[in-house]
Amino acid sequence: MSTRQWQEVVQEKRNIQQKLVEPYLRDIHGQNALPSAILDIDSVEGLTSAFANGSVTARDVTRTYIRRAAEAHQKTNCLTEVFFGEAIQEADKLDQYYQQHGELVGPLHGVPVTLKDQFDVKGADSTLGYVSRAFKPAARDAAIVEILKSLGAIVLAKTNLPQSIMWCETENPLWGLTTNPRDPNFTPGGSTGGEGVLLAMQASMVGWGTDIGGSIRIPAHMNGLWGFKPTSSRLPYMGVPVSTEGQEHVPSAVGPLTRSLSALVTVMQTVVDARPWVVDPKVTPIPWRRENYEDIQTRPLTIGVLLDDGVVKVHPPIERVLNDMVAKLKAAGHEIVQWNSSGHKECIEIMDQYYTADGGEDIRREVQAGGEPFIPHVEALTNRGKPITVYEYWQLNKRKLAAQQAYNDKWSLAKGLESGRTVDVVLMPTMPHPAVPHRGCKWVGYTKVWNFLDYPALSFPAGKVDASKDLVTKHEPRNDYDAWNWKLYDPKTMDGHPVGLQIVGRRFEEETVLGVAAVMEKLIKS
Amino acid sequence: MSTRQWQEVVQEKRNIQQKLVEPYLRDIHGQNALPSAILDIDSVEGLTSAFANGSVTARDVTRTYIRRAAEAHQKTNCLTEVFFGEAIQEADKLDQYYQQHGELVGPLHGVPVTLKDQFDVKGADSTLGYVSRAFKPAARDAAIVEILKSLGAIVLAKTNLPQSIMWCETENPLWGLTTNPRDPNFTPGGSTGGEGVLLAMQASMVGWGTDIGGSIRIPAHMNGLWGFKPTSSRLPYMGVPVSTEGQEHVPSAVGPLTRSLSALVTVMQTVVDARPWVVDPKVTPIPWRRENYEDIQTRPLTIGVLLDDGVVKVHPPIERVLNDMVAKLKAAGHEIVQWNSSGHKECIEIMDQYYTADGGEDIRREVQAGGEPFIPHVEALTNRGKPITVYEYWQLNKRKLAAQQAYNDKWSLAKGLESGRTVDVVLMPTMPHPAVPHRGCKWVGYTKVWNFLDYPALSFPAGKVDASKDLVTKHEPRNDYDAWNWKLYDPKTMDGHPVGLQIVGRRFEEETVLGVAAVMEKLIKS
Repeated sequence: MSTRQWQEVVQEKRNIQQKLVEPYLRDIHGQNALPSAILDIDSVEGLTSAFANGSVTARDVTRTYIRRAAEAHQKTNCLTEVFFGEAIQEADKLDQYYQQHGELVGPLHGVPVTLKDQFDVKGADSTLGYVSRAFKPAARDAAIVEILKSLGAIVLAKTNLPQSIMWCETENPLWGLTTNPRDPNFTPGGSTGGEGVLLAMQASMVGWGTDIGGSIRIPAHMNGLWGFKPTSSRLPYMGVPVSTEGQEHVPSAVGPLTRSLSALVTVMQTVVDARPWVVDPKVTPIPWRRENYEDIQTRPLTIGVLLDDGVVKVHPPIERVLNDMVAKLKAAGHEIVQWNSSGHKECIEIMDQYYTADGGEDIRREVQAGGEPFIPHVEALTNRGKPITVYEYWQLNKRKLAAQQAYNDKWSLAKGLESGRTVDVVLMPTMPHPAVPHRGCKWVGYTKVWNFLDYPALSFPAGKVDASKDLVTKHEPRNDYDAWNWKLYDPKTMDGHPVGLQIVGRRFEEETVLGVAAVMEKLIKS
Repeated sequence: MSTRQWQEVVQEKRNIQQKLVEPYLRDIHGQNALPSAILDIDSVEGLTSAFANGSVTARDVTRTYIRRAAEAHQKTNCLTEVFFGEAIQEADKLDQYYQQHGELVGPLHGVPVTLKDQFDVKGADSTLGYVSRAFKPAARDAAIVEILKSLGAIVLAKTNLPQSIMWCETENPLWGLTTNPRDPNFTPGGSTGGEGVLLAMQASMVGWGTDIGGSIRIPAHMNGLWGFKPTSSRLPYMGVPVSTEGQEHVPSAVGPLTRSLSALVTVMQTVVDARPWVVDPKVTPIPWRRENYEDIQTRPLTIGVLLDDGVVKVHPPIERVLNDMVAKLKAAGHEIVQWNSSGHKECIEIMDQYYTADGGEDIRREVQAGGEPFIPHVEALTNRGKPITVYEYWQLNKRKLAAQQAYNDKWSLAKGLESGRTVDVVLMPTMPHPAVPHRGCKWVGYTKVWNFLDYPALSFPAGKVDASKDLVTKHEPRNDYDAWNWKLYDPKTMDGHPVGLQIVGRRFEEETVLGVAAVMEKLIKS
C-alpha cells in the first residue's frame, strides 16, 4: 500500500468516530443529564441496587457515562470504536425488562463496560492499532463480551492501545496518541491505556484489557485503578485477536480494570460463575472459590516483600508507598518475609526470546499490510533478532519449564520465620516509576516476570506522589535502564500522580490475591 | 559413535539387566512363594485390606510379583531397568512400619507399580529407547514417582517402549523387541507396551505410561486392560523426559494402566488428592471430584457412539463388541446419539505437522548421538518433511485453536433427541484392529484425535475376538490405510485376543469418564 492509502484509511476511521462522538459532546450539559455524582458509584452492587430500587434508569446512567466518555475522548483521545447509540438502545431494553418484570436481567444489569480495541464486538473492527485491520468487522462477539452482555452489562466503546499491543504506552498511527488525563505530556501507560484513561475519568465502571507483560497493571498503576491479570486460562480469550497470535508460551491474559476492589471481585466472580470453559476450550474449569477469598481475610498473612528487582531501582515515592504499606501490615500483625529477585533475570531473558522468536515477522507483516510507519518502540522490537528454528524453540520451552519449576520451588520453600507458613502472596512495585512523559517507559521487569510464570498479579492504588515528601535523591546507576529510569524522576511534574503496588499469588490463586487485596484496602482506608 | 560402540552399550545394559532378573527367575518355584492366587487380586483396596488385616506381608506379595515379572520378561522381553532388590527392601520397611504402628503407611501401601522407561527414578536411566540415554542416571524421582512412593507404592521395574516413543508398538535397538504374551509373533501394542505385557501377566498392579497419540490406550486395548489418558495437565509430567520435548501443542499425558476399574479410580483419586500442582507448575489445581464420579452413575446417560471414523473401517470383532455394548446400554435405558467423525480429519492433519515441525531434528539427533540404527517407522517419521519456521508454527497454532473450538462447539450442540441432554461421553473403538503381527500397526486415528483435543479418554476391556462369530467379510478399501488394515484381519490367529473400546469425555471430565465406565462395567458383568 502507498503512504496515501494508509492515511486515507486513518482519515475515514477517524471521521466515522468523530460523527459518533460529537452528538454526545454537545449533550454534555444537556437537559436530561443526571447529576454526575452518579458516576461516583464505583461498585457494581452500588449501581445495580439503584436500578433495583428504581431510583435511576439504565438509560439515564448510560447517557451520563456516555457524556463523560465523550469528554474523556476529547481530552485524551482514548476511544476507538464507539457504540453510544447501541448502548442507549440496550439500556432502554433493560429498563423495559425491569418495568415488566420488576427485577434486573442479571448481576451486571446496566453496568457500563468498555473494551480494549482487541475484543471482538460483532460488526466492529478489532484493530490492535494496525491500519490493515480497519474495515474488517468481527463476525461475532468475543466469548467474554457475550458473557458480559448476557449478564446485563452495556458496552459503551472500545479503546486505544499501541501499534502491535507490545508496548506499555498507547500510540499508533491509526488512532493516534492517547494522553494522561492528569497531564497531556504524560502517557497513561499501556497497552490497555485507553481503558486506564476512561476509568480514571469515571467514564466506565469496568474496563477489559489484556496483559502479556504488564498491559493491564501498568495503566492501572498510572491511573489510580485496580487492574488484575489472572492466570491466563482463568478467563476466556476466545474472540480476542492478538499480536504474534499463536505464540502461546508466554501467554497473554484477559483481565478487568476497575475503580474499586468491590467491582473487580464482582466481575471476576460473575464471569467465572458463567462457566466460560463451556464455550472456550482454553479456559480451565475451576469454579470461583469464594471461600478462598474470604478465608484468607480471617488470619494473619505471610507476605513476601520485594522492593527492588536488582535491575532498575524504583523512584522514591514508590519506595515510600511500599514501605508505608509494609509498616501497616506489620502493625496489623501480618508477617513480612524479604523476597529477593532470584530467578527473575533468567525468566526475563527467556521470555524476551519468545516475543521475537519469529524474527519480528508477524508484526512486520501486519504493519506492512497497512502501509503505515512503525512507532519507534515497535520497530526496535521487530529488529531485535533473527528468527530461531522450531527445534531451538522447543529447547527454549524446556528452559522455560525449568525456570518455572525453579520459581515454584523457590516459593514453596519461602516460609515465615515466626509462623513457619508458606508465603501467601508477594507485595512489590508495579513499575519503577509513576506516569512519565510519552515514550519514557522502558523497563517492565516488575510486571512481565509474572506473565512468564503465569501467576495472578493485581496492581492496586496504594498512594500518590507527594513532592513535599518524595525528594530527589542520589543513586549510582547500575546499567542503562537504571540510569534512564532515575533521570525520569521529577517530583514536581509527577506530584499527585497515582502509585500502584502489585500483589502476586501462585498459579490459579486469583481468589487469594483478591482476598489479600481486601485486607490491604482496609489498612489503607483506616 | 561407531557401530561397535552402540552395540557395546547395548550389551552392557542387557548384561546388567540379566544379572538383576536371573536370581528371581530361579526363585519362581522357590520355597517362600505365595500361592499365585494372590496375583488375582486386581484392586488396590483388595490388596491393602489383606495387608491391613495382617493376612499377608508386603515382602511376600512383592516377591510373588517379582517372580511373575521375571517370568513375564523371560517370555516377552518387557523390562528395562530392574529394581527387584530395592523393592524387597522397601517392602520390608513397610512390614516393619505395619508391625510397629499397626496401620498402613498410606493408601497405596505395598501396591506393586511399574513404570514405562520414561519416568525418572533416582539413580536409574530413562532411556526412551535411545542408546544415547544409557548410563545417564536421573538425579531425582519424577514427581509422580515421588507421590506414589510417599503413598506406599513399591516400584518394581521400568518397562520397554519404542525408539523415540513415537510409535504404537514396542521395539528399539537398545532393549530389543517386546512381544505379546498371547503370541510371540504379535505386538503387545505401544508405546507403553512393556506395561501392557506386565499387567496382562499379573506382574504389576498399576502401570504408568504416557500417551501422545494412543500410547496408553493401545496396549490397554490389545492386552485386555484399563488404560486412561487424562487431560494432559491433570497428572504431573515433571521428571518425565520425552521425545520432541518442548513441543507442547500436542500434549503428552501421564496416565495409569490397570487390571481393574477399581484400581484405576483409586490411583487417579489418590494421586490427585496428593495435590501434585504444588510441586509441578504444569498441573492444573483441580481437586478430585468424587461427586462427579458418583452422580453420573445415578442417572440415564446420553452417549455419543462412533463406530467408524470414515478413514479406516474397524475389524468385525470390534464392530460386534461395540454393537453389543450399545445394545446393553439401550436396554438399560440410556440414550444413544450417533456421533460422526466430522472434524477428525482436520485435527489429525494439523497435529501431524506438530510431531515433525522441527523436520525430525530432535529424534535424528538422539539416534545419531547413540549411533544405533533407526527402526523403520521412526526413520520414516523423521523424513516426513522439512522443518517449518516459527512464524508458520504460530499460524499452525491458530489453526489448532480454531479446530479445538469447532470440536467443542460440535459437542455442545450434540444433544439426545429424547432427553435434550448434552452428550455425556463418546463411546468408540480404540483401534481398528486387535493385536496384530509386529510392525502391523499403521492407523491410530481413533486415539490420537483426543490428544490433539486434550480430552480424557479411557480404553477398557469390552470383549474378545471370537473366531466362531467374527467371520471374514468383504470390504471395499477406501484408501491405503484401510486396505492395509483389512488385510490384517485373521480371526484364527486373533481368536481370543482382547478388544477394548474407548470412552471419551470433555476436557478435565476425568471423573465423568470413569463414572460412565463403572456403568458399562456393570452392564458387561451382568
